[in-house]
Amino acid sequence: MSRIAYVNGRYLPQPEASVNVEDRGYQFADGIYEVVHVYDGRLIDADLHLARLDRSLKEIGLKPPMSRAALLQVMHEVARRNRVREGLLYMQVTRGVARRDHAFPGPGVKQSIVVTVRRLPPFPAAVEGWTGTAITHPDLRWARCDIKSVGLLPNVLARQKAREQGATEAILVAADGTVREGASTTVWIVDAEGRLRTRQLDHAILPGCTRGALIGLLEQEDILFAEGPYDVETLRGAREAFLTSATSFVKPILAIDGKPVGDGQVGPVVRRLFELFSRHVKGGLRNAA
Amino acid sequence: MSRIAYVNGRYLPQPEASVNVEDRGYQFADGIYEVVHVYDGRLIDADLHLARLDRSLKEIGLKPPMSRAALLQVMHEVARRNRVREGLLYMQVTRGVARRDHAFPGPGVKQSIVVTVRRLPPFPAAVEGWTGTAITHPDLRWARCDIKSVGLLPNVLARQKAREQGATEAILVAADGTVREGASTTVWIVDAEGRLRTRQLDHAILPGCTRGALIGLLEQEDILFAEGPYDVETLRGAREAFLTSATSFVKPILAIDGKPVGDGQVGPVVRRLFELFSRHVKGGLRNAA
Repeated sequence: MSRIAYVNGRYLPQPEASVNVEDRGYQFADGIYEVVHVYDGRLIDADLHLARLDRSLKEIGLKPPMSRAALLQVMHEVARRNRVREGLLYMQVTRGVARRDHAFPGPGVKQSIVVTVRRLPPFPAAVEGWTGTAITHPDLRWARCDIKSVGLLPNVLARQKAREQGATEAILVAADGTVREGASTTVWIVDAEGRLRTRQLDHAILPGCTRGALIGLLEQEDILFAEGPYDVETLRGAREAFLTSATSFVKPILAIDGKPVGDGQVGPVVRRLFELFSRHVKGGLRNAA
Repeated sequence: MSRIAYVNGRYLPQPEASVNVEDRGYQFADGIYEVVHVYDGRLIDADLHLARLDRSLKEIGLKPPMSRAALLQVMHEVARRNRVREGLLYMQVTRGVARRDHAFPGPGVKQSIVVTVRRLPPFPAAVEGWTGTAITHPDLRWARCDIKSVGLLPNVLARQKAREQGATEAILVAADGTVREGASTTVWIVDAEGRLRTRQLDHAILPGCTRGALIGLLEQEDILFAEGPYDVETLRGAREAFLTSATSFVKPILAIDGKPVGDGQVGPVVRRLFELFSRHVKGGLRNAA
Protein backbone atom coordinates (compact mmCIF):
# COMPACT_ATOMS: atom_id res chain seq x y z
CA MET A 1 0.00 0.00 0.00
CA SER A 2 1.19 3.52 -0.78
CA ARG A 3 2.56 5.26 2.33
CA ILE A 4 2.17 8.62 0.67
CA ALA A 5 -0.68 9.25 -1.75
CA TYR A 6 -1.38 12.21 -3.99
CA VAL A 7 -4.98 13.39 -3.55
CA ASN A 8 -6.25 16.52 -5.28
CA GLY A 9 -3.07 18.52 -5.05
CA ARG A 10 -1.75 17.22 -1.73
CA TYR A 11 0.70 14.49 -0.77
CA LEU A 12 -0.87 12.73 2.22
CA PRO A 13 0.02 9.80 4.47
CA GLN A 14 -2.04 6.81 3.33
CA PRO A 15 -4.43 6.71 6.33
CA GLU A 16 -5.37 10.34 5.67
CA ALA A 17 -5.66 9.87 1.91
CA SER A 18 -9.40 10.10 1.52
CA VAL A 19 -12.15 11.37 -0.71
CA ASN A 20 -15.56 12.70 0.18
CA VAL A 21 -18.41 10.17 0.34
CA GLU A 22 -20.13 12.16 -2.41
CA ASP A 23 -17.21 11.77 -4.80
CA ARG A 24 -18.79 10.47 -7.98
CA GLY A 25 -16.17 7.78 -8.16
CA TYR A 26 -17.62 6.34 -4.95
CA GLN A 27 -21.32 6.74 -5.71
CA PHE A 28 -21.39 6.14 -9.49
CA ALA A 29 -18.07 4.55 -10.56
CA ASP A 30 -17.88 7.77 -12.58
CA GLY A 31 -14.14 7.70 -13.12
CA ILE A 32 -11.18 6.34 -15.05
CA TYR A 33 -7.98 4.71 -13.90
CA GLU A 34 -4.58 3.58 -15.11
CA VAL A 35 -1.89 1.31 -13.67
CA VAL A 36 1.69 1.92 -14.77
CA HIS A 37 4.68 -0.30 -14.17
CA VAL A 38 7.67 1.41 -12.56
CA TYR A 39 11.04 -0.17 -13.28
CA ASP A 40 14.30 1.30 -12.08
CA GLY A 41 12.40 4.51 -11.44
CA ARG A 42 11.15 4.70 -15.04
CA LEU A 43 7.46 4.58 -16.00
CA ILE A 44 7.12 1.81 -18.57
CA ASP A 45 5.01 2.62 -21.65
CA ALA A 46 3.95 5.85 -19.94
CA ASP A 47 3.09 7.46 -23.28
CA LEU A 48 0.65 4.65 -24.08
CA HIS A 49 -0.95 4.80 -20.62
CA LEU A 50 -1.37 8.57 -20.66
CA ALA A 51 -2.82 8.51 -24.18
CA ARG A 52 -5.29 5.84 -23.08
CA LEU A 53 -6.16 7.84 -19.96
CA ASP A 54 -6.99 10.86 -22.13
CA ARG A 55 -9.07 8.73 -24.47
CA SER A 56 -11.07 7.10 -21.65
CA LEU A 57 -11.69 10.49 -20.04
CA LYS A 58 -12.87 11.91 -23.33
CA GLU A 59 -15.25 8.99 -23.89
CA ILE A 60 -17.03 9.81 -20.62
CA GLY A 61 -16.97 13.56 -21.18
CA LEU A 62 -14.12 14.50 -18.83
CA LYS A 63 -11.13 16.71 -19.53
CA PRO A 64 -7.65 15.71 -18.36
CA PRO A 65 -7.19 17.00 -14.79
CA MET A 66 -3.79 18.50 -15.61
CA SER A 67 -1.25 18.60 -18.41
CA ARG A 68 0.56 15.40 -19.29
CA ALA A 69 3.85 16.89 -18.09
CA ALA A 70 2.31 17.83 -14.73
CA LEU A 71 0.78 14.39 -14.31
CA LEU A 72 4.12 12.72 -15.10
CA GLN A 73 5.71 14.94 -12.48
CA VAL A 74 3.13 13.87 -9.87
CA MET A 75 3.64 10.21 -10.78
CA HIS A 76 7.40 10.48 -10.39
CA GLU A 77 6.97 12.41 -7.16
CA VAL A 78 4.65 9.77 -5.67
CA ALA A 79 7.18 7.07 -6.59
CA ARG A 80 10.02 9.15 -5.13
CA ARG A 81 8.25 9.97 -1.86
CA ASN A 82 7.44 6.30 -1.39
CA ARG A 83 11.00 5.31 -2.37
CA VAL A 84 9.58 2.93 -5.00
CA ARG A 85 11.99 2.15 -7.85
CA GLU A 86 10.14 -1.02 -8.89
CA GLY A 87 6.39 -1.13 -8.45
CA LEU A 88 2.96 -0.15 -9.72
CA LEU A 89 1.66 3.39 -9.96
CA TYR A 90 -2.11 3.64 -9.72
CA MET A 91 -3.99 6.75 -10.77
CA GLN A 92 -7.67 7.51 -10.78
CA VAL A 93 -9.59 10.50 -12.10
CA THR A 94 -13.27 10.96 -11.22
CA ARG A 95 -15.92 13.54 -12.00
CA GLY A 96 -15.48 15.05 -8.54
CA VAL A 97 -17.68 15.74 -5.53
CA ALA A 98 -21.27 16.84 -6.09
CA ARG A 99 -24.72 16.39 -4.66
CA ARG A 100 -25.86 12.96 -5.86
CA ASP A 101 -27.58 13.09 -9.26
CA HIS A 102 -26.94 10.74 -12.16
CA ALA A 103 -26.42 13.49 -14.76
CA PHE A 104 -23.11 15.37 -14.81
CA PRO A 105 -22.68 18.12 -12.23
CA GLY A 106 -22.21 21.73 -13.32
CA PRO A 107 -18.93 23.03 -14.75
CA GLY A 108 -17.86 24.35 -11.33
CA VAL A 109 -17.19 20.84 -10.03
CA LYS A 110 -13.52 19.87 -10.26
CA GLN A 111 -12.37 16.36 -11.08
CA SER A 112 -10.77 14.35 -8.30
CA ILE A 113 -7.38 12.85 -8.91
CA VAL A 114 -5.61 10.24 -6.81
CA VAL A 115 -2.17 8.73 -7.43
CA THR A 116 -0.75 5.93 -5.30
CA VAL A 117 2.12 3.51 -5.71
CA ARG A 118 3.09 0.16 -4.33
CA ARG A 119 6.26 -1.83 -4.38
CA LEU A 120 6.66 -4.96 -6.52
CA PRO A 121 9.09 -7.85 -6.05
CA PRO A 122 12.01 -7.71 -8.52
CA PHE A 123 11.12 -8.27 -12.17
CA PRO A 124 11.06 -12.07 -12.73
CA ALA A 125 14.46 -13.24 -13.85
CA ALA A 126 13.16 -16.31 -15.66
CA VAL A 127 9.81 -17.00 -17.27
CA GLU A 128 9.54 -20.37 -15.48
CA GLY A 129 9.04 -18.56 -12.17
CA TRP A 130 6.33 -16.37 -13.66
CA THR A 131 3.54 -18.73 -14.72
CA GLY A 132 -0.15 -18.97 -13.87
CA THR A 133 -3.38 -20.80 -14.58
CA ALA A 134 -6.83 -19.63 -15.65
CA ILE A 135 -10.48 -20.49 -15.63
CA THR A 136 -12.99 -19.50 -18.29
CA HIS A 137 -15.91 -17.34 -17.14
CA PRO A 138 -18.85 -15.66 -18.90
CA ASP A 139 -18.18 -12.03 -19.76
CA LEU A 140 -20.94 -10.14 -17.89
CA ARG A 141 -19.45 -6.68 -18.34
CA TRP A 142 -20.93 -3.62 -20.01
CA ALA A 143 -20.75 -2.85 -23.72
CA ARG A 144 -17.89 -0.29 -23.45
CA CYS A 145 -14.99 -2.21 -21.96
CA ASP A 146 -12.67 -0.14 -24.15
CA ILE A 147 -13.18 2.60 -21.53
CA LYS A 148 -10.95 1.90 -18.52
CA SER A 149 -13.54 2.86 -15.92
CA VAL A 150 -13.46 2.00 -12.22
CA GLY A 151 -16.73 0.10 -12.69
CA LEU A 152 -14.94 -3.19 -12.08
CA LEU A 153 -17.43 -5.27 -10.08
CA PRO A 154 -17.90 -7.90 -12.84
CA ASN A 155 -14.10 -8.20 -13.09
CA VAL A 156 -13.85 -8.51 -9.30
CA LEU A 157 -16.45 -11.30 -9.20
CA ALA A 158 -14.79 -13.19 -12.06
CA ARG A 159 -11.32 -12.87 -10.54
CA GLN A 160 -12.64 -14.02 -7.17
CA LYS A 161 -14.14 -17.11 -8.85
CA ALA A 162 -10.71 -17.81 -10.37
CA ARG A 163 -9.04 -17.50 -6.99
CA GLU A 164 -11.60 -19.83 -5.38
CA GLN A 165 -10.65 -22.39 -8.02
CA GLY A 166 -6.95 -21.90 -7.37
CA ALA A 167 -6.36 -20.05 -10.64
CA THR A 168 -4.58 -16.80 -11.39
CA GLU A 169 -6.97 -15.25 -13.86
CA ALA A 170 -10.51 -15.55 -15.27
CA ILE A 171 -10.64 -15.52 -19.07
CA LEU A 172 -13.89 -13.85 -20.07
CA VAL A 173 -15.89 -15.53 -22.83
CA ALA A 174 -18.68 -13.75 -24.73
CA ALA A 175 -22.16 -15.25 -25.13
CA ASP A 176 -21.22 -16.21 -28.72
CA GLY A 177 -18.35 -18.36 -27.44
CA THR A 178 -15.53 -16.04 -28.50
CA VAL A 179 -12.71 -15.19 -26.12
CA ARG A 180 -12.50 -11.57 -24.98
CA GLU A 181 -9.79 -10.90 -22.38
CA GLY A 182 -8.89 -11.65 -18.80
CA ALA A 183 -10.50 -9.88 -15.82
CA SER A 184 -7.52 -7.49 -15.87
CA THR A 185 -5.29 -8.80 -18.64
CA THR A 186 -5.06 -9.30 -22.41
CA VAL A 187 -5.28 -12.97 -23.48
CA TRP A 188 -3.03 -14.38 -26.20
CA ILE A 189 -2.66 -17.86 -27.64
CA VAL A 190 -0.45 -19.77 -30.01
CA ASP A 191 -3.05 -21.82 -31.83
CA ALA A 192 -2.81 -25.45 -32.99
CA GLU A 193 -1.33 -24.18 -36.29
CA GLY A 194 1.40 -22.26 -34.47
CA ARG A 195 -0.07 -18.83 -35.09
CA LEU A 196 0.11 -16.16 -32.37
CA ARG A 197 -3.38 -14.71 -31.87
CA THR A 198 -5.13 -12.10 -29.77
CA ARG A 199 -8.59 -10.63 -30.08
CA GLN A 200 -9.10 -7.53 -32.22
CA LEU A 201 -9.76 -4.19 -30.53
CA ASP A 202 -13.29 -2.80 -30.40
CA HIS A 203 -15.75 -1.71 -27.69
CA ALA A 204 -15.73 -5.16 -26.05
CA ILE A 205 -12.15 -5.17 -24.72
CA LEU A 206 -9.58 -2.81 -23.29
CA PRO A 207 -6.83 -1.68 -25.66
CA GLY A 208 -4.02 -3.04 -23.50
CA CYS A 209 -0.88 -0.92 -23.31
CA THR A 210 1.34 -3.95 -22.80
CA ARG A 211 -0.56 -5.55 -25.70
CA GLY A 212 0.27 -2.51 -27.84
CA ALA A 213 3.89 -2.46 -26.77
CA LEU A 214 4.26 -6.18 -27.47
CA ILE A 215 2.75 -5.86 -30.95
CA GLY A 216 5.37 -3.17 -31.61
CA LEU A 217 8.12 -5.52 -30.44
CA LEU A 218 6.81 -8.31 -32.69
CA GLU A 219 7.55 -6.33 -35.81
CA GLN A 220 11.16 -7.43 -35.98
CA GLU A 221 10.38 -11.03 -35.08
CA ASP A 222 9.67 -13.94 -37.37
CA ILE A 223 6.43 -14.85 -35.61
CA LEU A 224 3.17 -15.41 -37.51
CA PHE A 225 0.66 -13.12 -35.81
CA ALA A 226 -3.03 -12.41 -36.35
CA GLU A 227 -5.39 -10.06 -34.51
CA GLY A 228 -8.95 -11.32 -34.65
CA PRO A 229 -11.72 -13.34 -33.08
CA TYR A 230 -11.23 -16.90 -31.87
CA ASP A 231 -13.47 -19.11 -29.83
CA VAL A 232 -13.11 -20.92 -26.54
CA GLU A 233 -12.51 -24.25 -28.34
CA THR A 234 -9.52 -22.72 -30.11
CA LEU A 235 -8.33 -21.48 -26.70
CA ARG A 236 -8.63 -24.98 -25.26
CA GLY A 237 -6.77 -26.46 -28.22
CA ALA A 238 -3.95 -23.89 -28.10
CA ARG A 239 -0.30 -24.90 -27.89
CA GLU A 240 0.49 -21.93 -25.69
CA ALA A 241 -1.51 -19.29 -23.85
CA PHE A 242 -0.38 -16.21 -21.98
CA LEU A 243 -1.58 -12.96 -20.45
CA THR A 244 -0.22 -9.44 -20.70
CA SER A 245 -0.84 -6.33 -18.59
CA ALA A 246 1.14 -3.67 -16.76
CA THR A 247 0.94 -5.97 -13.72
CA SER A 248 1.38 -9.37 -15.39
CA PHE A 249 4.03 -8.35 -17.95
CA VAL A 250 4.05 -11.49 -20.13
CA LYS A 251 2.71 -14.39 -18.08
CA PRO A 252 2.45 -17.96 -19.43
CA ILE A 253 -0.80 -19.76 -18.59
CA LEU A 254 -0.06 -23.44 -18.14
CA ALA A 255 -3.58 -24.72 -17.49
CA ILE A 256 -7.11 -23.58 -18.29
CA ASP A 257 -10.10 -24.97 -16.38
CA GLY A 258 -7.78 -27.53 -14.83
CA LYS A 259 -6.51 -28.91 -18.16
CA PRO A 260 -2.95 -28.32 -19.36
CA VAL A 261 -2.37 -25.90 -22.22
CA GLY A 262 -0.34 -27.79 -24.84
CA ASP A 263 2.15 -29.94 -22.96
CA GLY A 264 1.66 -27.90 -19.78
CA GLN A 265 5.12 -26.31 -20.03
CA VAL A 266 6.28 -22.82 -20.97
CA GLY A 267 6.29 -22.83 -24.78
CA PRO A 268 8.86 -21.34 -27.18
CA VAL A 269 6.76 -18.38 -28.35
CA VAL A 270 5.83 -17.07 -24.90
CA ARG A 271 9.44 -17.62 -23.81
CA ARG A 272 10.64 -15.44 -26.68
CA LEU A 273 8.02 -12.77 -25.99
CA PHE A 274 8.90 -12.72 -22.30
CA GLU A 275 12.52 -12.10 -23.29
CA LEU A 276 11.57 -9.36 -25.73
CA PHE A 277 9.36 -7.69 -23.14
CA SER A 278 12.03 -7.98 -20.42
CA ARG A 279 14.47 -6.20 -22.70
CA HIS A 280 11.82 -3.57 -23.41
CA VAL A 281 11.31 -2.99 -19.67
CA LYS A 282 14.93 -3.16 -18.64
CA GLY A 283 16.60 -1.40 -21.48
CA GLY A 284 13.91 0.32 -23.47
CA LEU A 285 14.12 4.06 -23.10
CA ARG A 286 11.90 4.61 -26.13
CA ASN A 287 8.61 4.04 -24.32
CA ALA A 288 9.57 5.03 -20.79
CA ALA A 289 9.22 8.45 -19.22
CA MET B 1 -26.48 17.45 0.49
CA SER B 2 -26.44 15.79 3.90
CA ARG B 3 -25.05 18.11 6.58
CA ILE B 4 -24.37 15.14 8.82
CA ALA B 5 -23.39 11.78 7.33
CA TYR B 6 -22.96 8.41 8.98
CA VAL B 7 -19.62 6.87 8.01
CA ASN B 8 -18.42 3.61 9.55
CA GLY B 9 -19.87 4.16 13.00
CA ARG B 10 -19.49 7.95 13.23
CA TYR B 11 -21.81 10.86 12.52
CA LEU B 12 -19.68 13.43 10.72
CA PRO B 13 -20.21 16.88 9.22
CA GLN B 14 -20.52 16.45 5.46
CA PRO B 15 -17.13 18.02 4.52
CA GLU B 16 -15.39 15.54 6.85
CA ALA B 17 -17.45 12.57 5.66
CA SER B 18 -14.83 10.70 3.70
CA VAL B 19 -13.58 7.26 2.84
CA ASN B 20 -10.05 6.09 2.17
CA VAL B 21 -8.85 6.21 -1.45
CA GLU B 22 -8.36 2.44 -1.24
CA ASP B 23 -11.98 1.80 -0.34
CA ARG B 24 -13.09 -0.85 -2.81
CA GLY B 25 -16.17 1.19 -3.57
CA TYR B 26 -13.88 3.87 -5.01
CA GLN B 27 -11.43 1.64 -6.87
CA PHE B 28 -13.71 -1.20 -8.03
CA ALA B 29 -17.37 -0.10 -7.66
CA ASP B 30 -17.38 -3.06 -5.29
CA GLY B 31 -20.46 -2.02 -3.34
CA ILE B 32 -24.23 -1.87 -3.11
CA TYR B 33 -26.57 1.04 -2.46
CA GLU B 34 -30.18 1.86 -1.69
CA VAL B 35 -32.23 5.06 -1.80
CA VAL B 36 -35.23 5.28 0.54
CA HIS B 37 -37.95 7.90 0.49
CA VAL B 38 -38.58 9.63 3.82
CA TYR B 39 -42.07 11.03 4.28
CA ASP B 40 -43.23 12.63 7.51
CA GLY B 41 -40.22 11.03 9.16
CA ARG B 42 -41.22 7.53 8.03
CA LEU B 43 -39.11 5.37 5.69
CA ILE B 44 -41.36 4.35 2.83
CA ASP B 45 -41.21 0.68 1.80
CA ALA B 46 -38.23 0.25 4.12
CA ASP B 47 -38.84 -3.51 4.39
CA LEU B 48 -38.58 -3.88 0.60
CA HIS B 49 -35.42 -1.75 0.42
CA LEU B 50 -33.66 -3.58 3.24
CA ALA B 51 -34.59 -6.97 1.80
CA ARG B 52 -33.20 -5.88 -1.57
CA LEU B 53 -30.05 -4.55 0.08
CA ASP B 54 -29.48 -7.95 1.72
CA ARG B 55 -30.09 -9.72 -1.56
CA SER B 56 -27.69 -7.50 -3.53
CA LEU B 57 -25.02 -7.90 -0.85
CA LYS B 58 -25.43 -11.67 -0.90
CA GLU B 59 -25.13 -11.76 -4.70
CA ILE B 60 -21.69 -10.16 -4.50
CA GLY B 61 -20.59 -12.21 -1.49
CA LEU B 62 -21.01 -9.61 1.25
CA LYS B 63 -22.72 -9.96 4.60
CA PRO B 64 -25.01 -7.22 5.93
CA PRO B 65 -22.85 -4.71 7.82
CA MET B 66 -25.20 -4.69 10.81
CA SER B 67 -28.61 -6.02 11.86
CA ARG B 68 -31.64 -4.66 10.11
CA ALA B 69 -32.82 -3.05 13.35
CA ALA B 70 -29.47 -1.32 13.84
CA LEU B 71 -29.45 -0.09 10.25
CA LEU B 72 -32.98 1.31 10.61
CA GLN B 73 -31.84 3.09 13.73
CA VAL B 74 -28.90 4.66 11.87
CA MET B 75 -31.19 5.71 9.03
CA HIS B 76 -33.65 7.37 11.40
CA GLU B 77 -30.78 9.01 13.28
CA VAL B 78 -29.28 10.44 10.08
CA ALA B 79 -32.70 11.85 9.14
CA ARG B 80 -33.17 13.24 12.67
CA ARG B 81 -29.72 14.86 12.90
CA ASN B 82 -30.30 16.53 9.54
CA ARG B 83 -33.85 17.51 10.56
CA VAL B 84 -35.19 15.87 7.40
CA ARG B 85 -38.86 14.82 7.61
CA GLU B 86 -39.29 14.63 3.84
CA GLY B 87 -36.35 13.57 1.73
CA LEU B 88 -34.16 10.79 0.39
CA LEU B 89 -31.96 8.57 2.50
CA TYR B 90 -28.96 7.18 0.64
CA MET B 91 -26.97 4.25 1.95
CA GLN B 92 -23.96 2.48 0.50
CA VAL B 93 -22.14 -0.64 1.65
CA THR B 94 -18.77 -1.54 0.12
CA ARG B 95 -16.24 -4.33 0.61
CA GLY B 96 -14.06 -2.02 2.68
CA VAL B 97 -10.51 -0.70 2.50
CA ALA B 98 -7.76 -3.01 1.31
CA ARG B 99 -4.59 -3.01 -0.76
CA ARG B 100 -5.77 -2.94 -4.37
CA ASP B 101 -6.35 -6.44 -5.78
CA HIS B 102 -9.35 -7.53 -7.83
CA ALA B 103 -10.13 -10.63 -5.75
CA PHE B 104 -11.84 -10.21 -2.38
CA PRO B 105 -9.64 -9.13 0.53
CA GLY B 106 -9.20 -11.40 3.54
CA PRO B 107 -11.88 -11.86 6.19
CA GLY B 108 -10.27 -9.23 8.43
CA VAL B 109 -11.38 -6.39 6.17
CA LYS B 110 -14.58 -4.73 7.40
CA GLN B 111 -17.24 -3.44 5.04
CA SER B 112 -17.64 0.33 4.76
CA ILE B 113 -21.07 1.80 5.32
CA VAL B 114 -22.20 5.32 4.55
CA VAL B 115 -25.65 6.81 5.14
CA THR B 116 -26.60 10.32 4.00
CA VAL B 117 -29.88 12.13 3.57
CA ARG B 118 -31.13 15.08 1.62
CA ARG B 119 -34.26 17.14 1.75
CA LEU B 120 -36.96 16.91 -0.91
CA PRO B 121 -39.60 19.48 -1.82
CA PRO B 122 -43.07 18.55 -0.47
CA PHE B 123 -44.65 15.47 -2.06
CA PRO B 124 -46.40 16.64 -5.26
CA ALA B 125 -50.00 17.55 -4.50
CA ALA B 126 -51.23 16.91 -8.03
CA VAL B 127 -49.94 14.61 -10.73
CA GLU B 128 -50.05 17.41 -13.32
CA GLY B 129 -47.17 19.11 -11.57
CA TRP B 130 -45.12 15.92 -11.58
CA THR B 131 -44.57 14.99 -15.22
CA GLY B 132 -41.50 14.36 -17.33
CA THR B 133 -40.21 13.32 -20.72
CA ALA B 134 -37.83 10.60 -21.89
CA ILE B 135 -35.48 9.57 -24.62
CA THR B 136 -34.72 6.00 -25.65
CA HIS B 137 -31.11 4.88 -25.34
CA PRO B 138 -29.27 1.59 -25.92
CA ASP B 139 -28.84 -0.43 -22.74
CA LEU B 140 -25.06 -0.79 -22.43
CA ARG B 141 -25.03 -2.09 -18.85
CA TRP B 142 -23.70 -5.36 -17.48
CA ALA B 143 -25.60 -8.63 -17.37
CA ARG B 144 -26.55 -8.43 -13.67
CA CYS B 145 -28.60 -5.26 -13.35
CA ASP B 146 -30.71 -7.03 -10.72
CA ILE B 147 -27.81 -6.27 -8.36
CA LYS B 148 -28.05 -2.66 -7.17
CA SER B 149 -24.34 -1.96 -7.40
CA VAL B 150 -22.66 1.44 -7.43
CA GLY B 151 -21.27 0.62 -10.88
CA LEU B 152 -23.52 3.23 -12.47
CA LEU B 153 -21.37 4.79 -15.19
CA PRO B 154 -23.59 3.52 -18.07
CA ASN B 155 -26.63 4.91 -16.23
CA VAL B 156 -24.82 8.23 -15.72
CA LEU B 157 -23.94 8.52 -19.41
CA ALA B 158 -27.49 7.65 -20.51
CA ARG B 159 -29.07 10.10 -18.05
CA GLN B 160 -26.66 12.83 -19.16
CA LYS B 161 -27.71 12.22 -22.77
CA ALA B 162 -31.34 12.61 -21.69
CA ARG B 163 -30.56 15.87 -19.95
CA GLU B 164 -28.70 17.20 -22.99
CA GLN B 165 -31.84 16.54 -25.00
CA GLY B 166 -34.01 18.28 -22.42
CA ALA B 167 -35.55 15.05 -21.13
CA THR B 168 -36.01 13.71 -17.61
CA GLU B 169 -35.02 10.10 -18.13
CA ALA B 170 -33.34 7.72 -20.55
CA ILE B 171 -35.35 4.57 -21.26
CA LEU B 172 -32.88 1.76 -21.87
CA VAL B 173 -33.59 -0.53 -24.81
CA ALA B 174 -31.92 -3.93 -25.24
CA ALA B 175 -30.16 -4.94 -28.46
CA ASP B 176 -33.20 -7.10 -29.31
CA GLY B 177 -35.44 -4.01 -29.26
CA THR B 178 -37.20 -4.78 -25.97
CA VAL B 179 -37.63 -2.11 -23.32
CA ARG B 180 -35.72 -2.67 -20.08
CA GLU B 181 -36.01 0.19 -17.59
CA GLY B 182 -34.97 3.78 -17.07
CA ALA B 183 -31.45 4.82 -16.04
CA SER B 184 -32.72 4.90 -12.43
CA THR B 185 -36.42 4.07 -12.73
CA THR B 186 -38.87 1.31 -13.64
CA VAL B 187 -40.73 1.94 -16.91
CA TRP B 188 -44.45 1.21 -17.27
CA ILE B 189 -46.86 1.70 -20.13
CA VAL B 190 -50.56 1.45 -20.84
CA ASP B 191 -50.45 -0.15 -24.27
CA ALA B 192 -52.68 0.57 -27.26
CA GLU B 193 -55.13 -2.08 -25.95
CA GLY B 194 -55.37 -0.38 -22.58
CA ARG B 195 -53.32 -2.94 -20.71
CA LEU B 196 -50.88 -1.81 -17.99
CA ARG B 197 -47.48 -3.39 -18.67
CA THR B 198 -44.01 -3.48 -17.18
CA ARG B 199 -41.07 -5.71 -17.98
CA GLN B 200 -40.68 -9.01 -16.08
CA LEU B 201 -37.95 -9.33 -13.46
CA ASP B 202 -34.75 -11.19 -14.28
CA HIS B 203 -31.03 -10.42 -14.32
CA ALA B 204 -31.47 -7.58 -16.84
CA ILE B 205 -33.36 -5.10 -14.63
CA LEU B 206 -33.54 -3.98 -11.04
CA PRO B 207 -36.43 -5.33 -8.97
CA GLY B 208 -37.83 -1.89 -8.17
CA CYS B 209 -39.19 -1.43 -4.63
CA THR B 210 -41.71 1.16 -5.79
CA ARG B 211 -42.55 -1.24 -8.62
CA GLY B 212 -43.17 -3.98 -6.05
CA ALA B 213 -45.24 -1.73 -3.80
CA LEU B 214 -47.33 -0.54 -6.74
CA ILE B 215 -48.02 -4.09 -7.92
CA GLY B 216 -49.27 -4.80 -4.39
CA LEU B 217 -51.55 -1.76 -4.54
CA LEU B 218 -52.91 -2.88 -7.92
CA GLU B 219 -54.44 -6.00 -6.42
CA GLN B 220 -57.62 -4.28 -5.34
CA GLU B 221 -57.93 -2.27 -8.54
CA ASP B 222 -59.82 -3.13 -11.68
CA ILE B 223 -56.81 -2.57 -13.95
CA LEU B 224 -55.70 -5.13 -16.52
CA PHE B 225 -52.02 -5.72 -15.78
CA ALA B 226 -49.34 -7.89 -17.36
CA GLU B 227 -45.66 -8.33 -16.46
CA GLY B 228 -43.63 -9.28 -19.49
CA PRO B 229 -41.50 -8.20 -22.41
CA TYR B 230 -42.57 -5.48 -24.83
CA ASP B 231 -40.64 -3.72 -27.55
CA VAL B 232 -39.78 -0.13 -28.29
CA GLU B 233 -42.50 0.08 -30.95
CA THR B 234 -45.10 -0.86 -28.32
CA LEU B 235 -43.59 1.83 -26.09
CA ARG B 236 -43.93 4.42 -28.85
CA GLY B 237 -47.53 3.35 -29.51
CA ALA B 238 -48.52 3.43 -25.82
CA ARG B 239 -51.50 5.45 -24.56
CA GLU B 240 -49.69 6.26 -21.35
CA ALA B 241 -46.17 5.85 -20.01
CA PHE B 242 -44.75 6.47 -16.58
CA LEU B 243 -41.78 5.85 -14.34
CA THR B 244 -41.52 4.65 -10.77
CA SER B 245 -38.71 4.77 -8.22
CA ALA B 246 -38.11 5.87 -4.63
CA THR B 247 -37.16 9.27 -6.11
CA SER B 248 -39.73 9.56 -8.93
CA PHE B 249 -42.70 8.06 -7.04
CA VAL B 250 -45.15 7.64 -9.95
CA LYS B 251 -44.15 10.05 -12.72
CA PRO B 252 -46.09 10.40 -15.98
CA ILE B 253 -43.95 10.61 -19.11
CA LEU B 254 -45.67 12.85 -21.63
CA ALA B 255 -43.22 12.57 -24.51
CA ILE B 256 -40.63 10.07 -25.70
CA ASP B 257 -37.90 11.06 -28.17
CA GLY B 258 -39.76 14.33 -28.68
CA LYS B 259 -43.07 12.72 -29.67
CA PRO B 260 -46.13 12.86 -27.40
CA VAL B 261 -47.20 9.71 -25.58
CA GLY B 262 -50.91 9.17 -26.42
CA ASP B 263 -52.51 12.60 -26.47
CA GLY B 264 -49.59 14.12 -24.56
CA GLN B 265 -51.65 14.57 -21.38
CA VAL B 266 -51.65 12.74 -18.06
CA GLY B 267 -53.79 9.64 -18.68
CA PRO B 268 -56.42 8.05 -16.45
CA VAL B 269 -54.40 4.99 -15.41
CA VAL B 270 -51.29 6.88 -14.30
CA ARG B 271 -53.53 9.40 -12.55
CA ARG B 272 -55.17 6.59 -10.59
CA LEU B 273 -51.82 4.97 -9.75
CA PHE B 274 -50.38 8.29 -8.61
CA GLU B 275 -53.37 8.64 -6.25
CA LEU B 276 -52.94 5.10 -4.96
CA PHE B 277 -49.24 5.62 -4.40
CA SER B 278 -49.79 8.99 -2.70
CA ARG B 279 -52.17 7.30 -0.26
CA HIS B 280 -49.59 4.56 0.27
CA VAL B 281 -46.91 7.16 1.08
CA LYS B 282 -49.07 9.48 3.14
CA GLY B 283 -51.18 7.03 5.02
CA GLY B 284 -49.61 3.64 4.61
CA LEU B 285 -48.08 2.42 7.82
CA ARG B 286 -47.95 -1.14 6.53
CA ASN B 287 -44.75 -0.70 4.54
CA ALA B 288 -43.13 2.12 6.44
CA ALA B 289 -40.67 1.81 9.29
